[in-house]
Formats: sequence, C-alpha cells, structure tokens
Amino acid sequence: MRTTSNSLLICLLAGALIPALRAEEGMWTFDNLPLKQLKEKYDFSPTQQWIDHVRLSSVRFNDGGSGSFVSPHGLVLTNHHVALGQLQKVSTENRNYVTSGFYAATPDRELKSPDLEVNILISMENVTSRVTSTVKPGMNDQHAFQARKAEIAKIEKESLDKTGLRSDVVTLYSGAEYWLYRYKKYTDVRLVFAPEQSIAFFGGDPDNFTYPRYDLDMALFRIYENGKPVESKNFLRLNPKGAHDGDLVFVSGNPGSTSRLDTLAELEYQRDSWLPLVLRTLQRRSGVLKEYSSLGTEQAREAKTRLFLLANSLKALGGMYSGLKDPKLMARKEASEKEFRSLVAKQHPEYAAAWNETAGAVKEMASRLDERFALSHSSNLTATAQNIVQYVAEIEKPDGQRLPGFHDAQLSSLRFEMFSPAPVYPALEQVELADDLSYAQQLLGPQHAYVKAVLGGQSPAEVAAKAIHGTKLADPKVREALVKGGEAAVAASNDSLIVLARKMDPFSREFIKWREDKVESVLTVAGQEIGKARFAVYGKSTYPDATFTLRLSYGTVKGYPMNGTIAPPETTFFGLYDRATSFGFKPPFNLPERYLARRDRLDLSTPLNFVNTCDIIGGNSGSPVINRNGELVGLIFDGNIESLVGDYVYDIEKNRAVAVHPGAMMEALRKLYDAPGLIDELEAPAQSSMAAK
Amino acid sequence: MRTTSNSLLICLLAGALIPALRAEEGMWTFDNLPLKQLKEKYDFSPTQQWIDHVRLSSVRFNDGGSGSFVSPHGLVLTNHHVALGQLQKVSTENRNYVTSGFYAATPDRELKSPDLEVNILISMENVTSRVTSTVKPGMNDQHAFQARKAEIAKIEKESLDKTGLRSDVVTLYSGAEYWLYRYKKYTDVRLVFAPEQSIAFFGGDPDNFTYPRYDLDMALFRIYENGKPVESKNFLRLNPKGAHDGDLVFVSGNPGSTSRLDTLAELEYQRDSWLPLVLRTLQRRSGVLKEYSSLGTEQAREAKTRLFLLANSLKALGGMYSGLKDPKLMARKEASEKEFRSLVAKQHPEYAAAWNETAGAVKEMASRLDERFALSHSSNLTATAQNIVQYVAEIEKPDGQRLPGFHDAQLSSLRFEMFSPAPVYPALEQVELADDLSYAQQLLGPQHAYVKAVLGGQSPAEVAAKAIHGTKLADPKVREALVKGGEAAVAASNDSLIVLARKMDPFSREFIKWREDKVESVLTVAGQEIGKARFAVYGKSTYPDATFTLRLSYGTVKGYPMNGTIAPPETTFFGLYDRATSFGFKPPFNLPERYLARRDRLDLSTPLNFVNTCDIIGGNSGSPVINRNGELVGLIFDGNIESLVGDYVYDIEKNRAVAVHPGAMMEALRKLYDAPGLIDELEAPAQSSMAAK
Repeated sequence: MRTTSNSLLICLLAGALIPALRAEEGMWTFDNLPLKQLKEKYDFSPTQQWIDHVRLSSVRFNDGGSGSFVSPHGLVLTNHHVALGQLQKVSTENRNYVTSGFYAATPDRELKSPDLEVNILISMENVTSRVTSTVKPGMNDQHAFQARKAEIAKIEKESLDKTGLRSDVVTLYSGAEYWLYRYKKYTDVRLVFAPEQSIAFFGGDPDNFTYPRYDLDMALFRIYENGKPVESKNFLRLNPKGAHDGDLVFVSGNPGSTSRLDTLAELEYQRDSWLPLVLRTLQRRSGVLKEYSSLGTEQAREAKTRLFLLANSLKALGGMYSGLKDPKLMARKEASEKEFRSLVAKQHPEYAAAWNETAGAVKEMASRLDERFALSHSSNLTATAQNIVQYVAEIEKPDGQRLPGFHDAQLSSLRFEMFSPAPVYPALEQVELADDLSYAQQLLGPQHAYVKAVLGGQSPAEVAAKAIHGTKLADPKVREALVKGGEAAVAASNDSLIVLARKMDPFSREFIKWREDKVESVLTVAGQEIGKARFAVYGKSTYPDATFTLRLSYGTVKGYPMNGTIAPPETTFFGLYDRATSFGFKPPFNLPERYLARRDRLDLSTPLNFVNTCDIIGGNSGSPVINRNGELVGLIFDGNIESLVGDYVYDIEKNRAVAVHPGAMMEALRKLYDAPGLIDELEAPAQSSMAAK
Repeated sequence: MRTTSNSLLICLLAGALIPALRAEEGMWTFDNLPLKQLKEKYDFSPTQQWIDHVRLSSVRFNDGGSGSFVSPHGLVLTNHHVALGQLQKVSTENRNYVTSGFYAATPDRELKSPDLEVNILISMENVTSRVTSTVKPGMNDQHAFQARKAEIAKIEKESLDKTGLRSDVVTLYSGAEYWLYRYKKYTDVRLVFAPEQSIAFFGGDPDNFTYPRYDLDMALFRIYENGKPVESKNFLRLNPKGAHDGDLVFVSGNPGSTSRLDTLAELEYQRDSWLPLVLRTLQRRSGVLKEYSSLGTEQAREAKTRLFLLANSLKALGGMYSGLKDPKLMARKEASEKEFRSLVAKQHPEYAAAWNETAGAVKEMASRLDERFALSHSSNLTATAQNIVQYVAEIEKPDGQRLPGFHDAQLSSLRFEMFSPAPVYPALEQVELADDLSYAQQLLGPQHAYVKAVLGGQSPAEVAAKAIHGTKLADPKVREALVKGGEAAVAASNDSLIVLARKMDPFSREFIKWREDKVESVLTVAGQEIGKARFAVYGKSTYPDATFTLRLSYGTVKGYPMNGTIAPPETTFFGLYDRATSFGFKPPFNLPERYLARRDRLDLSTPLNFVNTCDIIGGNSGSPVINRNGELVGLIFDGNIESLVGDYVYDIEKNRAVAVHPGAMMEALRKLYDAPGLIDELEAPAQSSMAAK
C-alpha cells in the first residue's frame, strides 16, 4: 500500500548523489517535466492546458495519500486504504464501515470526515535566491540554518497573508532549489462510497506490496466548500476501457520521500542504524496492538487501522532494508558516488568537502538515535497533549524561531488536527502509552534523566494508567479551551496527560535543538553544496527526491519477469475468484457476501488490477493513472514487491506500480453495489478535450 | 517439467557427502522406507500390502518419465509431456496430435507407440557382497572397475536368463550398495487420450517450472500384452476429490538423478565446468532448431518436441546453475563436508583419502570436457548409426568387456530403440549434424584429429549434406538388415552415414576407455569409500541419490511463501481463465477452442493444479500422488522454480512438487472431451481396500 510513511519514516537526512537516470525513471516536478523524453520516445507533447488540467485535477490528502477529481461536482477518487483512517473514525462499535463498506445514495447521507484535509496545488514559484541570499558569508552552519529557516517561515507567512492559500516552501535537489508551493485547501470532505475492506484489501498483509493482485482498493469522497459541493472544470473523466498493454500512461500524485540522491554514508546509516531500529520499534508496537486486539471484538476493531498501517510499514521497510543489504546495490551506489566525487574534485573543489561533512553528521545522529525513538509516541493522545504544550509556547515566539511544525503558515492545518472530533479509545491509548514509557526505559536505561522525569519512580503501567484515567483531552472542546487559555492555562492545568506532557517537553526541545545544530544544519549546508555540485557537473537533467509534493511520472502498461515466469499486464475478476477459492475463502482471502451471491452477474473477464512502469513511492496511493487524452484509466494503490527498494533505486525491469482498473470499478458499482447515481456522475461528459498536440 | 534429464544431463560423477536430513526430505527406496518418521509425524504405518500395491501400480517409461495403472484394464496415466515424444511420432504433417489432442473412444482407435517401453519393478535384491567381493586386494582402480563391471553384467545376464525379466544392477549410496532390480517390461503401449498441448502446457516455457499453474498435463496409455490389454489388480483408483491442504500424500516414481551426496569438489566441477558447457551447448542447439522452425509450418512441427525438451532442460539447468552459484549453498555444503571429513579422519582414517581422489578425478574430467561435447550428437539418426557400428562389434565380446549400454541384459531394450519405426525428418537431421560437426570444429580446433577425420577437408555443411542424402537408415528395415549382417556387413557398408559413424567410432571408444580408466574407476572406488564411511559414521539413516529407479517420497499438500506473498495449496479453473484473459489469449496463454466454447459448462471452482512438499526431481513426471488409502489424488508434472536447486538440496520452506488435480481431469473429460467410456473406466471400483493400519 502506497500511503506515505508515518512520522517515524520521515527521514531526517538530506544529501545528494546523481544516479545514472534510467528510462522512465523519475518523479518530475510540474515545472520541469521530461518533455524531451516524451517527445522522443512516445511522440507525445502535452499542451500547457493538458499539464494544468492534470495538476488541478490532482489532490493531496493531509494524512498521506493522493487522489483526483472525477466529476464536475467535487467527487474525488482515492484508495480505500487512504480513506481508511476516516472510515475508522466515523465507525462505531455498532456500525463498522471499515468492514461493511459505505454508500451514500443521496447527498444527505454523505458522512463528514472528522479531520481530513485536501490540498490542490495552485502555483509554484522558485524562491531559491531569496532563501539562499539570507545566508551571509562567514555564517557558521547553525546560523545559516536558522537564517534560512526564518526566511522560509517569512515567505510562507507573507504568501498566506497575501493569497489566503496554504503556502509551503519546499526544499528540492537537497537544497539546491527552494520552491514556494501554494495550495487551495479544503477541510469539508465527505465520504460517498467505500467497498468492504475484504475486497479493497483482498489478500491482506500477504498480498500487500505484491502482484498479481485482485483488489478493489477504491473510495470516493465529495469535497464541499461553504456547505456546497465544489464545482470544478478540472476533473479526470473516467474511461472504463482503461489502458492496454504497452500504452503510455502518467501518474500524477504525491510521492512521500525517496533517498535516491543520498550519499553512501547516509545509506549506510539507514542500513546500519536507522532501519534496524525503526523495524524493531514497529515490530514492538505491532505486538502490543495484537495483544490488545486479542482482548475482544471491540478492541480488535479499535486497533484494526493502526495494525494495518503498522503491517504495511513493516513490509515496506523490510523490503527497503533487504534492498539496502544487497551488496550489489551498495556497490553500484559506491561506484557512481566515486565518479561524481572525482569529477567534483577536478572541476569544483569548493564542494569536495561536503561528503565528509555529511558522513560526520549522520555519525552524530546515530549516536543519539535511541533517544529519537524513546521520545516518540505511539499513543496519539499523548502526542496531541505534547502538541498543545508546545503550541501555546511556540506561537508566542517570532515565526522564524519556532520549532518545526509550528510556523504561522502551518497553524491552521495543525489546529484542524489537534481539535479533531475523531473518537479516542482510552484503553488503547493507555496500553500504547505504557509501552512507549517501557520502551524508553529499555532504550535509555532507568537512570536516564528523561526516564526518571516521566516515571518519577513509578512503573510505566502506573504512570500510563494515571495519565489516561485523569485526562479529559479525549474531548476536543477541552483541547480547544486549553489552547485558547494559552501558556498560562496550560502551565496551570492539572490534567494528568498535560502534566506528563510538560515533563516530556524540555527533553523534546533539547533533542530537537541538538539535532538542528549538530545534524540538520550540517546536512543542509552539505546537501546544498552537493546539490549545486550536481547541477554544475551534470546539469539539471534529473528530478529531485520525493517530498510529498505533486509529481508526474510516466511509463507504459507492462508485465514483468516474476518468480521464474512473467506477470501479466493486468488481472481479471476470474483471478479474484481463483485466489479466494484456492485458499478456501479463509481470511484474508474471504470475499464479501455480495461477491458470492451476485457472482453470476459479473463479467469475470473484466480487468481488475493492472501494472505499469511509472515511478512511484509511498504517498502515491490514490494517484490517478492518466492517458494521453487526460482521462483517468487507473487508480494507483500499490507497488510490487520488487519496487520496495524504490526508495533507493528504480529498476524498469521489475519495478511496477499497481493500479485498480476503471472497468472493475464500474462493473462493481453497477452490478454489485447498485449505485446508479454514482455511475451517472462518473459517466458525465468531459467539459473539454484534453488531447495533446 | 519433470522428465528426466536427456543423455547430456546424466552426470558421470558419483561421490558421497551426508547432508543433515530435513523433514520430509527423501526419495526412499522401497526396501528402506522412512516408516519411523511416518509413524511419528503422521501416525501412518503402511502395511506391506499397501507398499506392494503402490510399487506394482507404478510404471517407468524408458524415455524418462513415470506413470501408474489407473484401471484394471491396463490404463496408464502419465503426463502429456511424457507422452509428447510418442505424440510427435504418431503425428504427420496433416494430423498433428500434439496440437489437436487425441481420444480413442473405442479400443480399435488406440494408437500404438513406435518405441515406448514401460517397466514395472517386480523385485529388488541386495547384491552388494557379490559385486564387491570380485575386487581382490591389491587390484588397482582400473582393474577393480573392470572386475565390478564384469560381475554386474554377469548378474544381470543370469537374472535375465533365469526370470525373463529386465534385470538391472543399480548402484546406490555412491557404490556402498548394489541392488539387482527386476522389471516386467511391456512394449505394446497404445495412446488412448491426450488433450491439446496448449492446455497441457498452458503458459509454455514462461510458466514451466513455476507455480501457481493451470495445466492439464495428462495423457492416458493402455498397456497390451499378446494383443490384449493387461489386466491388473494393481492399479490406483482415481479419487476425484483429490487431497486437501495439510493432507499426507506420497509420490511413487522414478527420480532421474540428484547430486546431494556429491563432494564439494564435484559440485565445484559442476558449477565451473560442466554446467556452463552444457548450457552453452543446449543454447546453441536451441538456436539451430529455432532457425529451422522458421522455415515453415512443417519444419516447425518437426522441431517442436525437440525445442520443447531443450527449453525445458535449459530452464531446469539454468535454475540448478543459479543454485550452485549461491555462495550460501556452497558454504553449507563446505561446512557439512568439513564435519564429515573430520569425523572420518578420527574414526575411519582408512577412508580419509577418498575426497582428494575424487577431486583429482573431476579435475581430470574437466581437462577433456570439450571432447565430451564434441563427440555427442544432437542428430538422432547419427546417434543411431553410431549405435549400429558399435553394436555389431560389442556383441562379439564377452559381456563384461563391452562398452556401457551394450551388455546382454540391455540389448533387447536397445534394439527396440534402434529399430524404432518412428518417423525421421532428414532435413532436420542434416541441419543438426552440420551443426554438431561445426561445434566440434569450434570446440577442438580445425587441427584436432577427430575434426580432420570426420570432415576430411570439407565443410561441416558439405559433410552433413552428403551423409544424410546418401543414407538409407531412415528405414528401420535397413537398420535391422545391417545389424543382422553383423560386423562384416557394417564394415562393408557404403551407406554414407555408416561411413561417417565408422570414422567417429575410434574416437568415441578411446574417449570412453580413457574416461573409465582415469575418471570413473577412480570415482567408483572413492565413492564407495565415502559411502562406506558415511554408513560407518552416520548409519544407514538416509536415502541414496536418485538413479531413475522407483522411489517413494512423502509430504503434505501445502502452499509456500512466494514473491513476497504466499502461493495457495491449489489453483482452480478460474485461474486458468484469469491468466489466459490477462495475457489477451496470446500464445503460450491461448486456450483450445473447446475451452472457450464450453466454458459455461465447467464448474470453474474445480481445483486444477496443487502443490505438495514431496521430494521429487526430473524423472518424476507422471508420478501418481497417492493418499493413505492408496488412491490416486494427483499427477505430478513439475516442480516450482524454487525446487530447481533440488539437485543439490531440498528445502521444505519453498520446494514444491506441482501436480494435476484429479477433479480437473474428470471435469475436463466429462464436460469438454465427451469421454464417457474413460470416465466409466476411471470410476471402476477398486478391488481391495488399501487403507493402512
């Protein structure tokens, strides 16, 4: 499943190393599309109208996925697993939309998402010179870092004030470029349709990140503004015929992060320090949730989405880790870095020191990695408490001096999350908090100042029980009131979880400050030098690493060599019934009742999923697959197992993006879900022809 | 496809090394079944009646496959690809049973196979002491080898004369044991049913040796004796319900050869010398046949079976080669050999030198490996000519002194092959002979005595053209007359191919003699010492390497981890239609017309193929899968891609035997092939209950 990584996965490191660009590789920014390659290889020259139409039809979800408008009335198509968090939040013990699915036949039945934000990229502006010119000669790395940070916050704030649009400065090419991205933001997002999870995620964890695949991983939201559906000319018309073997297709979405330009030292750090500890942490959390789930049906329901996301991350990270342990991959990386560095040494010796600086910074980071994990939270409510404690303090400071995440331009999205009315499961929070504290104790030892401060001589279980039993933060109104009361109210609060968060706060601040000074500032400077060196030596012939911002990939529908044979370009409903039957319908290979009762209605030869060579990564989930005519011919929901190494390298031989076929969506809506309204809306004629020249 | 290796693959090496025996590993001889393991793990104790019934129901095909009786009237079930050679031989330019399939609704329409021999194992007798006692103290390796060889020929001849049964002395445990196997032999074998190759071999070369799979790889022969079907109490009743996930099953068949007890030096030889040259040779031959096929439809038909077998071997050997190149596999082998040798050095120093002797012998073999391939034939007719030239000379000698393959006990089967009425395709023979000669020239250089002798200053193409145009050997009567005329007739013959074979003969003889003296005799002695050492150190706790003789494997029906997910225990007809549709019905994913026209008649949820953990290898093709009750619950036709390394190691995690499900056979016979007669015969009640105690 191609959701973007959760916070644990956002890698702190930036760096730069040019790989040799492979055919069809690349997650291109919309200002720098590979027009030459498209013209030469496919005789395709998209018009500016085509490009703008695709961009404005594409959406980003704040919780880590992508999507697209598919009707003139604000209907947005994405994956079931992107909608999963919201499905969980609107479900109750008695009405579980995750398992039963959901369909609002009329607008009044649509369900408002508690805390889903949707962004549409309106404009992009290169602000590199403004950001970099704030750094004056003679500044040390720390001062340069702070100056840049302050300037970025200023640019974002100015833009927000001027346009009212969400404004983010994005660091590209390891800091060789800075861009101001402005987004139209929507927060009234209502659920229209989701199938049962057993068909959306048919095959479960085993089939996750693999192909051939048979998943109807789709969901439909409708975007509202001022209580009315957003009317938009920019939507992708769904073409039920889809794309065929060999067809040129595009993916427009928000790949979360990649490390393809990282230095060898950074990859070694990921392999030897970061990934082993991440995997250990997630495995531990997964174990805790499984134990909790075993307590009963309601507990299992509460933990289901978190467990799903953990299993998803564990499989993805496990694949990345295996990839990094492959000596061949590392040898290739070493060879290309050696070549790059030797060119730099000859042509631009002023940048030559950057690699050793990077190596020094990651070594520094590795030295306090245990703390990084000890200070992180699996308990969402504890994380919210900490956000409140920090929020009230940070907003008193000048924007440029705040902790990351608390800049003016970010506050409205942050408040939307902090005050979310999504249900809180106290028993689950308590179990998670207890384990977080216990894990910190294990990682740091009982004598560590943080451990002593938060436990105060009690056991993790005792501290967690008191903190969760004595808190009222589950009520969003209590959170709002605290924030409204500002620093004084938070300082005076005797809410047990706020009390605990106050104890945690200084350690969090000290760590963030240390990391900025010793790691990030060094990496920023060194990364920028390597980025500049790359432009100087190779030109701007490549694409930047993924940053959960809008990118366009291109490729073709194509099978691949797999497990001794070849995987087909597409699968069909026949295959769904084969796999379900061949496992005796045992979960996760069970099917919703309607798939059994109405099987004879289906044309089983309808394509269900298909693969293409577009270059994607986590965050691309829900991205539309688009043809030359600007029509929607697929819905990205995953990559194959061979693509898990895609964080580091792209291999056209075997890396594939996996998508739902639009024919399957229409067949299911028509024959299984009795959704004529949706079918009519999806079949609405396009407003303009988007054929390229 | 699990046919046994062709002559090129019969490895000359024998040796011994004990691997740690893994659960369910083993191709057990019927005199030494793993009764203890079966009792402990599955609470199953087969009666002697069960064991004998299974043995006497099992058959071996002389051209490299296995099968079983499935009715009281001599009906034998095997794979389509085991029957393929015969299907090719009974087909003509106008009636191609390979592609169209075949069904004889009445006995008079059954088609007699030109040269198919079937063997049933009647008895086994341990003759170790008789064979080994012929070797007297002080004999050198060469003398010992000749003495053993003579004694073996004598035992076989005596047995043949006494019983009239085919009698083979089989070398087991690298020569630590010799057994006399007696077979009832049938040569009137008639084709009853074969489906179209496109369904028998659905997925073609890509899907070959892989799973999930969707092949109806079955064929039915009827065995005749004295013009009447063989009536037999020993047959396996087909149970259309098959076996289920987790069920205990057995495979009774004739695995061709394995190298699991080989020494490290022998495996290194296979990896560094043997396999690279075999692969190169087969790739070359495959190229020649593809070029020939491109000349026209008839040429393609003629070459089809050979190309199929070559592709099959190339994929199998390629998998073995990859396996051997895995440093982990070699490291494991090295570690277990080290342990074994250190135990032998302490407890039985008299055997300690055997490993170095083995290493010396394979080094010797490697030195003349090019000649081994230069002297081999892809042209069948040339091989037959050489057989004739050698036959008439060999039968004049005492049995014990003859070339391998020409001993008295082997002559009747050899004549059956030499005088086969199977069609000869002269244009194809010419192309193959020309390439054999050209390859010899390339391998040995133009100045090599063999090259000079066979080419006589002409080009390979000229020599081949003359030899094939001027020969009458395509006519089996001409071959019979020549053999009848004996040495004088052959010496006087001016048949162009006989003339060429006479030129080749001395080189063949010299090479065989050299190999016996310098390689085989050394390996035989050293192998026997290692075999004895193994018994001395570890006891007779294991099974011998495969020797294309009857073995029993056991295991369970079980999926396995595959390509990031899990492969199901079985597949269904749904999957067949999925895979065909998903590739747009393009060959090799096309289906016979009746599968399209009659699709609605089928219950698509019927299991089609399934996998189990039984330990098999090439030669097991056509083996029955048998349940506790002695019923046929499957038909082995392949191993998965992970099992290709099975020549060297067995891995229960991933190695799987792939079988046709009996439910699919019955469903297809009933609904697609309109074969009520066959269904009645296959559903005939069993004569006795075979349930074990």
